[in-house]
Amino acid sequence: TAPPSPLLRPFSATARPHDILHVSALPSRIKPKYKDSPTSSLLSLRWPEPPRNVLIIPKFHAPQVTLSAVTFAKHVHQGYPGVNLVFERRVASQIHESLPFPIYTADPSALHDKIDLVATLGGDGTILRAASLFSLHSSVPPILSFSMGSLGFLGEWKFDEYKRAWRQVYMSGSRVAVTDLQDPHTQAAAANRLPNDEDDLPLHDAWSHVRGKSMGLTRSSKVLLRHRLKVGVYDAEGVNINNQLMPTSTAEPQQLLPPTPAALKTSDERTEPMKRAFHAINELVIHRGPNPHLAIIDVYVNGRFLTEAVADGILVSTPTGSTAYSLSAGGSIMHPLVKALLITPICARSLSFRPLGLPLNSKVVLKLSEKNRGRELEVSIDGKRKSGVTIGMEIRVEGETVGRTPDGGWAGGVPCVIRSPANGNPTEDDDGWVGGLNGLLKFNYPFGEA
Amino acid sequence: TAPPSPLLRPFSATARPHDILHVSALPSRIKPKYKDSPTSSLLSLRWPEPPRNVLIIPKFHAPQVTLSAVTFAKHVHQGYPGVNLVFERRVASQIHESLPFPIYTADPSALHDKIDLVATLGGDGTILRAASLFSLHSSVPPILSFSMGSLGFLGEWKFDEYKRAWRQVYMSGSRVAVTDLQDPHTQAAAANRLPNDEDDLPLHDAWSHVRGKSMGLTRSSKVLLRHRLKVGVYDAEGVNINNQLMPTSTAEPQQLLPPTPAALKTSDERTEPMKRAFHAINELVIHRGPNPHLAIIDVYVNGRFLTEAVADGILVSTPTGSTAYSLSAGGSIMHPLVKALLITPICARSLSFRPLGLPLNSKVVLKLSEKNRGRELEVSIDGKRKSGVTIGMEIRVEGETVGRTPDGGWAGGVPCVIRSPANGNPTEDDDGWVGGLNGLLKFNYPFGEA
Amino acid sequence: TAPPSPLLRPFSATARPHDILHVSALPSRIKPKYKDSPTSSLLSLRWPEPPRNVLIIPKFHAPQVTLSAVTFAKHVHQGYPGVNLVFERRVASQIHESLPFPIYTADPSALHDKIDLVATLGGDGTILRAASLFSLHSSVPPILSFSMGSLGFLGEWKFDEYKRAWRQVYMSGSRVAVTDLQDPHTQAAAANRLPNDEDDLPLHDAWSHVRGKSMGLTRSSKVLLRHRLKVGVYDAEGVNINNQLMPTSTAEPQQLLPPTPAALKTSDERTEPMKRAFHAINELVIHRGPNPHLAIIDVYVNGRFLTEAVADGILVSTPTGSTAYSLSAGGSIMHPLVKALLITPICARSLSFRPLGLPLNSKVVLKLSEKNRGRELEVSIDGKRKSGVTIGMEIRVEGETVGRTPDGGWAGGVPCVIRSPANGNPTEDDDGWVGGLNGLLKFNYPFGEA
Amino acid sequence: TAPPSPLLRPFSATARPHDILHVSALPSRIKPKYKDSPTSSLLSLRWPEPPRNVLIIPKFHAPQVTLSAVTFAKHVHQGYPGVNLVFERRVASQIHESLPFPIYTADPSALHDKIDLVATLGGDGTILRAASLFSLHSSVPPILSFSMGSLGFLGEWKFDEYKRAWRQVYMSGSRVAVTDLQDPHTQAAAANRLPNDEDDLPLHDAWSHVRGKSMGLTRSSKVLLRHRLKVGVYDAEGVNINNQLMPTSTAEPQQLLPPTPAALKTSDERTEPMKRAFHAINELVIHRGPNPHLAIIDVYVNGRFLTEAVADGILVSTPTGSTAYSLSAGGSIMHPLVKALLITPICARSLSFRPLGLPLNSKVVLKLSEKNRGRELEVSIDGKRKSGVTIGMEIRVEGETVGRTPDGGWAGGVPCVIRSPANGNPTEDDDGWVGGLNGLLKFNYPFGEA
Ligand SMILES: NC(=O)C1=CN([C@@H]2O[C@H](COP(=O)(O)OP(=O)(O)OC[C@H]3O[C@@H](n4cnc5c(N)ncnc54)[C@H](O)[C@@H]3O)[C@@H](O)[C@H]2O)C=CC1
Ligand SMILES: NC(=O)C1=CN([C@@H]2O[C@H](COP(=O)(O)OP(=O)(O)OC[C@H]3O[C@@H](n4cnc5c(N)ncnc54)[C@H](O)[C@@H]3O)[C@@H](O)[C@H]2O)C=CC1
Ligand SMILES: NC(=O)C1=CN([C@@H]2O[C@H](COP(=O)(O)OP(=O)(O)OC[C@H]3O[C@@H](n4cnc5c(N)ncnc54)[C@H](O)[C@@H]3O)[C@@H](O)[C@H]2O)C=CC1
Ligand SMILES: NC(=O)C1=CN([C@@H]2O[C@H](COP(=O)(O)OP(=O)(O)OC[C@H]3O[C@@H](n4cnc5c(N)ncnc54)[C@H](O)[C@@H]3O)[C@@H](O)[C@H]2O)C=CC1
Repeated sequence: TAPPSPLLRPFSATARPHDILHVSALPSRIKPKYKDSPTSSLLSLRWPEPPRNVLIIPKFHAPQVTLSAVTFAKHVHQGYPGVNLVFERRVASQIHESLPFPIYTADPSALHDKIDLVATLGGDGTILRAASLFSLHSSVPPILSFSMGSLGFLGEWKFDEYKRAWRQVYMSGSRVAVTDLQDPHTQAAAANRLPNDEDDLPLHDAWSHVRGKSMGLTRSSKVLLRHRLKVGVYDAEGVNINNQLMPTSTAEPQQLLPPTPAALKTSDERTEPMKRAFHAINELVIHRGPNPHLAIIDVYVNGRFLTEAVADGILVSTPTGSTAYSLSAGGSIMHPLVKALLITPICARSLSFRPLGLPLNSKVVLKLSEKNRGRELEVSIDGKRKSGVTIGMEIRVEGETVGRTPDGGWAGGVPCVIRSPANGNPTEDDDGWVGGLNGLLKFNYPFGEA
Repeated sequence: TAPPSPLLRPFSATARPHDILHVSALPSRIKPKYKDSPTSSLLSLRWPEPPRNVLIIPKFHAPQVTLSAVTFAKHVHQGYPGVNLVFERRVASQIHESLPFPIYTADPSALHDKIDLVATLGGDGTILRAASLFSLHSSVPPILSFSMGSLGFLGEWKFDEYKRAWRQVYMSGSRVAVTDLQDPHTQAAAANRLPNDEDDLPLHDAWSHVRGKSMGLTRSSKVLLRHRLKVGVYDAEGVNINNQLMPTSTAEPQQLLPPTPAALKTSDERTEPMKRAFHAINELVIHRGPNPHLAIIDVYVNGRFLTEAVADGILVSTPTGSTAYSLSAGGSIMHPLVKALLITPICARSLSFRPLGLPLNSKVVLKLSEKNRGRELEVSIDGKRKSGVTIGMEIRVEGETVGRTPDGGWAGGVPCVIRSPANGNPTEDDDGWVGGLNGLLKFNYPFGEA
Repeated sequence: TAPPSPLLRPFSATARPHDILHVSALPSRIKPKYKDSPTSSLLSLRWPEPPRNVLIIPKFHAPQVTLSAVTFAKHVHQGYPGVNLVFERRVASQIHESLPFPIYTADPSALHDKIDLVATLGGDGTILRAASLFSLHSSVPPILSFSMGSLGFLGEWKFDEYKRAWRQVYMSGSRVAVTDLQDPHTQAAAANRLPNDEDDLPLHDAWSHVRGKSMGLTRSSKVLLRHRLKVGVYDAEGVNINNQLMPTSTAEPQQLLPPTPAALKTSDERTEPMKRAFHAINELVIHRGPNPHLAIIDVYVNGRFLTEAVADGILVSTPTGSTAYSLSAGGSIMHPLVKALLITPICARSLSFRPLGLPLNSKVVLKLSEKNRGRELEVSIDGKRKSGVTIGMEIRVEGETVGRTPDGGWAGGVPCVIRSPANGNPTEDDDGWVGGLNGLLKFNYPFGEA
Repeated sequence: TAPPSPLLRPFSATARPHDILHVSALPSRIKPKYKDSPTSSLLSLRWPEPPRNVLIIPKFHAPQVTLSAVTFAKHVHQGYPGVNLVFERRVASQIHESLPFPIYTADPSALHDKIDLVATLGGDGTILRAASLFSLHSSVPPILSFSMGSLGFLGEWKFDEYKRAWRQVYMSGSRVAVTDLQDPHTQAAAANRLPNDEDDLPLHDAWSHVRGKSMGLTRSSKVLLRHRLKVGVYDAEGVNINNQLMPTSTAEPQQLLPPTPAALKTSDERTEPMKRAFHAINELVIHRGPNPHLAIIDVYVNGRFLTEAVADGILVSTPTGSTAYSLSAGGSIMHPLVKALLITPICARSLSFRPLGLPLNSKVVLKLSEKNRGRELEVSIDGKRKSGVTIGMEIRVEGETVGRTPDGGWAGGVPCVIRSPANGNPTEDDDGWVGGLNGLLKFNYPFGEA
């Protein structure tokens, strides 16, 4: 049922409108920096030079959203000439006819080295899909997410703000984006700064070509770095078998393409497949699935036996995931910046299995007990099933390490571009969490009519 | 994988040891009466004549339990000569060689007309299996349940009490069983009773042959009548399709046998298949099963739209089932005699879907919303899946009517023989519920060491 | 701070406008009958003759509501001449000047023998206050409740429907109220009824004087009978001390008046004070109150020790109360007609104290453990504290018996007049519960914007 | 009811057995260092020189515990000559006669500058009392806690381990305590360390006098640093009124003594009373207390309005407090090292007020809404009520900053000495949390008998 793969032309030199080119033709990825501030828990996005390769991810099966993706692509192509637009294969083949310029594609494993920035159009599921494309990597490009009608707790921007949103994220790092530096306090402070603070070096003029410069100064985009979980599946001998697990749905993009040529794989992936971890932005779930009987899972924390869970399932969630499945299963709601990992049972056959929170660096091991007697259990990451996990295997989970790398970048986490108010106070850094609780989750919704 | 069906000899006249005969050779079922009392919520079992056809249901896949079933069968056969022992086919073929007398079997649909009493050996699952054999009928024989090591909240007797338990239930209704009538208060009361109270009529001597008479007087067995749910599946046109649903597990006894010859079917089953309801003793569950996406179910109560449940699933439970799946899903614990029907969501994507209790006679309709878009949902009754329920269908649930019938019997409910204390005060009617909460469910288990 | 008690004139013969007369001058109470129907769980109100003595209870401290009470009183007085209006003392003294006709009052203990019907104007608290006036009695007059802006889960009618509501409840039982008998089906059925069914006897014309007869036929009012709890406080010697407990708030009407003269007390109250129980419509609460330490309460069910609750408190609730405090404490929501009694802990220091439901006829005993070491605990009934309960005492709770009395009336329960739709289908009997869950409690309120 | 204050002799020069001296005679406090390790989340205690001033805090009203305190005090005095023993006044006057050497005391405000180490004997309440003595200070001495029979989730050591526990904590920092440095791996690593790592400098021989040196090497004590909350009460004008709040219980040590002479107060306390925050180790609670009506509290997070809580109360808890009141109120269980602050409602009148977790550095403001109309609400910190908080006031809460100070010490948190296994693997750092969940809280206690 995969759509016929359109002609893939490898070299952009000869590219024509409607062409779908392979991302290998694109320049390498530009990694942004993230500045933190003493007054905000959000980070400021700083491109060292303008982003060039943008992956656009529209929701599947939603023709209206595909149209919006075309609108967005045209806007970016027209106003921001150096930008190349990349799409997943199934999307590329759907929309390349509608776009009067060449676009790029590749299978997921080739995206990581090229993509500077991701824009999603859809609901939370689309953001999860975007993140899953980088699930094997510690460095995820910033994600600019547009919600498209469907409820989105993670989605930040409404689509009709796309021009402002795009411009702000694109300009972040350029001189014109640094309004925050314009007020007297900051200037005074800046005057005292040492020249070796790299942020004070004269910014190059890579952005000078941007037509919309006259749009005026903007703020630097604010980024919420969402923690992820690292998940490894180990067989009874303790060997990591992550690379043997199969996604089960034919909707998975991986399934639609022939395997990536070996030459495009990173050496890491080829030589040390056991080490690679899946990164989850919401959660890892083990569930009885279609099995009518209770699942039995032994839980260890930092090498100590915690408990035998007898339940529909169990989940280990990030704080981001605390408003997803964990919420339904009765877990507390955690702000995404709490450095914790949540263990929430799903319908435990117990009166006393209260949801738990552990430090993010805890090591949790979930062992599929032999007591399950041959029943298969379902293992999913962010709602995508990984089949092939059987009794006796164990799943190791720990929080991803997040922080500044020696080269001044950030590793770890999913950098989500936060919506800024249209005419907002430039010093106000609202991460939107309180608004989402009230506006979307109807938190503590008051009793009474109307 | 079904065991080869052993030779079925139809007439007991020529029966030899080890034979497996068909239940059609047995006399008709004897229905007991149940006397209620102003001081207890338990009923007293009263056989009009001694029970003759006893169905013994041991747990599957548990060799030790099979041995106990043999022990129990021999004890009954030896001491209580008129009693015929019936087993499900797969059990009969397993144990007939171990029994020096003929036994009986049939497929489930033929049992209802013959079985006077059921004895289960196993855990709660075995009792559920016993009840499921009468799932299409309003009149269920009394169930005497022995727990066999596995946790049993429903199981009443420990197996090593089998002689006392059997004798008590067998004798209930005979003169010797009515200790309760021997104490002065009762006698005084009895003296004033009118002769048309049938319980005062001289009891016939059907029990006089029982060898163990010298064992002394016993109490009449006490019975807890567990309410059931009636469940009907209706297609989009409102037609009941219960008879088109298939159990999915090969462990289902129905699957092992050729269909019952039409002649043995009750006329009711042949002519009005649409009307027949499944009766659940624990609950009806609708669940997303292996489907990774949330199930969407519209819930109506007495014809009014209550809510759209977006969840892993939803369950409608009896009070008996309140300590089963509903407990795991966060429901309150209800005493089995509360006349209520519980609606408990399973991991609802909501902060405000609190479990509900409705009067037992409420009519609940669960509609598999078209929004599920082609996904199949799983429907199970007492843990047994019924496949074939698809989007657009609806499931109607209501409490079974329980009560005295014009002929003085009881219709409805599952009569469970309650354990009586070995040397207990004959006036103490403990239904065991408080004990089970503390002893098995560790209700409000105190904090602190030891 | 009590308002000066206005002159009380005992005989209505000489009554003048603005007078406040004592209810002893009024004719005796008329008890209605309640007809049940096979198709509805609501009862039909049937006055044997028109109600005469109506107690109007407006919310306290709400001047706007007092005005509405005046409006309502004038409407009733003008259109329904035989009706006498009764108010609590503090209300009577507030509004008698505004009413151009004599009104009646008494202290609470004298109301029971006189009041045919109660009308409340306010929120749930006002209905609770109305019910508390009959807290010592098994027979409560029908309550017609108007919600006045404040959220009301129990309140049925909006105040601007007062003319229709009043007329319907007043006419219930008269010939003109029995629309339900007018449709063809009913008439056919009626034709076959035996003359000894008292409902078919020619209704007398007690209503013929009602001016508004021309308003057309109405339905008989539907009544939801809410179960209550009987609560008795017993000292360490097992003596009922209900009559020694003091309400603690000066807002209690009892406090404002000298004690009722002995002659007005019913003999029952004088001679058997130990037997009288408080009746709660929501719940009985035991709470640590201002005590910073956990309360310790031993809980017995039907004479068996259930558990030692170590908690902020514990509550025993009716199904009606399941949407009050019990809901906040985590209990399930029960339809008011479920015959159950709920035990819900308040912040129990336990992981395994799940809320419980018991049959309504269970006997629950709560014992204030000696371990509380001299700390006082707070005991409240329907939100009103009863002081004087000390360590070592016990509180006995059981469901009130509800049912038809030998004289054909109903005893037990609080008969609440249900709102009928203005132009509703006369056969539709909506008890409003589903509507209240959705409209007021925001049950399963959907996620998402708007 | 305060015991008569015994003679206070100011100078130790002339001290005699049984004397109670003032702590001003003692040398200044020694602050330990805390080394962290890459492989453990526990810190290692390192005294720069042996601790000298030890505050011993036995449980109140527990004669058996007082005896144990005497035993402990004698052991320390005898074997560790330089150590001075300090007691709260009420304790000192109780036990000084039993001790053949002078002891020290002071009112709470004078303790902070003197106490090197605290030893508690009792339950969690005693540890809370110990912490409350340092509630106004950011630097709390290490707490060595002995549980004495009463359940203790925070208590670490059993009293019969007191010799080992004391020796280990006392020696931490001396050469003999560093077993951890003796194994080959560590030695190899040590060989490569730079001399400017102060831990490698030759340790001075302050411990050489200790008699028990022959007891052999021990490990350095491990410390779990528990985060606290900073709590400030502000009046309607935004002025901090912490110093106007009164503890309400006469059991409070402060109440027993005349006010500390001004000269003994730290300048900080005299000049900037508004700034001082209470530090809570468990939680801040606002509760309706004896008020029968729901409390109404507006909640702000980081300056944004979150919600209006209508409830029995609300609590802001540390992760340590997650197993205290927050657990009873339905909150999740958090490991004490999760850097979060929990908002848990107490019986909220809502279906959708799920417990929340925020980053520890969030600023939470709780405002006592004017809607409470004159009702007083109860404010407590770690179970001790602070009276004087009235409607319109607000309570500001945020996590205490914890971390290394410029001088290499730690500020913030309560350093709790963790129990080490008697013959434990020296590399095993068990923080005891998993053990406490299972052993004390009966977490996920399995169903079934025994
Ligand atoms: N009973 C439940 O609540 C279940 C929840 N899920 C969740 O669905 C996620 C997968 O999402 P889809 O593929 O879109 O599946 P889906 O189409 O079943 O939708 C899941 C729902 O969860 C929402 N969601 C996802 N992540 C969220 C977050 N971090 N915070 C708040 N809401 C969030 C989505 O908006 C959507 O409403 C899984 O990661 C899992 O958390 C999956 C199965 C059952
Ligand atoms: N997450 C959960 O708690 C799940 C529970 N179930 C329950 O299992 C039942 C089927 O039982 P089995 O076939 O034995 O499946 P099973 O082997 O999965 O065992 C279910 C467990 O529930 C217990 N149980 C069953 N009925 C009970 C009752 N009324 N009160 C207290 N405990 C009870 C059994 O003792 C057993 O421990 C279903 O009716 C459903 O209630 C089924 C699936 C998931
Ligand atoms: N944390 C809580 O939820 C608390 C609840 N209460 C409840 O308040 C009741 C007394 O009411 P008031 O004197 O008005 O006190 P109140 O002024 O404190 O209001 C209690 C609230 O409960 C509502 N309520 C009362 N009965 C209800 C019912 N049966 N179903 C749904 N909502 C109901 C009222 O509308 C009001 O919103 C008590 O019987 C108790 O149930 C009392 C104290 C604390
Ligand atoms: N309903 C409830 O659960 C209530 C709990 N409390 C808690 O009591 C604390 C004060 O303690 P006490 O003065 O001893 O009062 P208390 O004598 O009332 O005992 C409180 C109980 O909480 C335990 N506890 C205290 N802190 C704990 C922690 N961090 N983790 C686990 N258990 C803990 C104690 O061991 C004791 O069993 C407060 O900080 C508050 O957390 C206070 C009032 C009500």
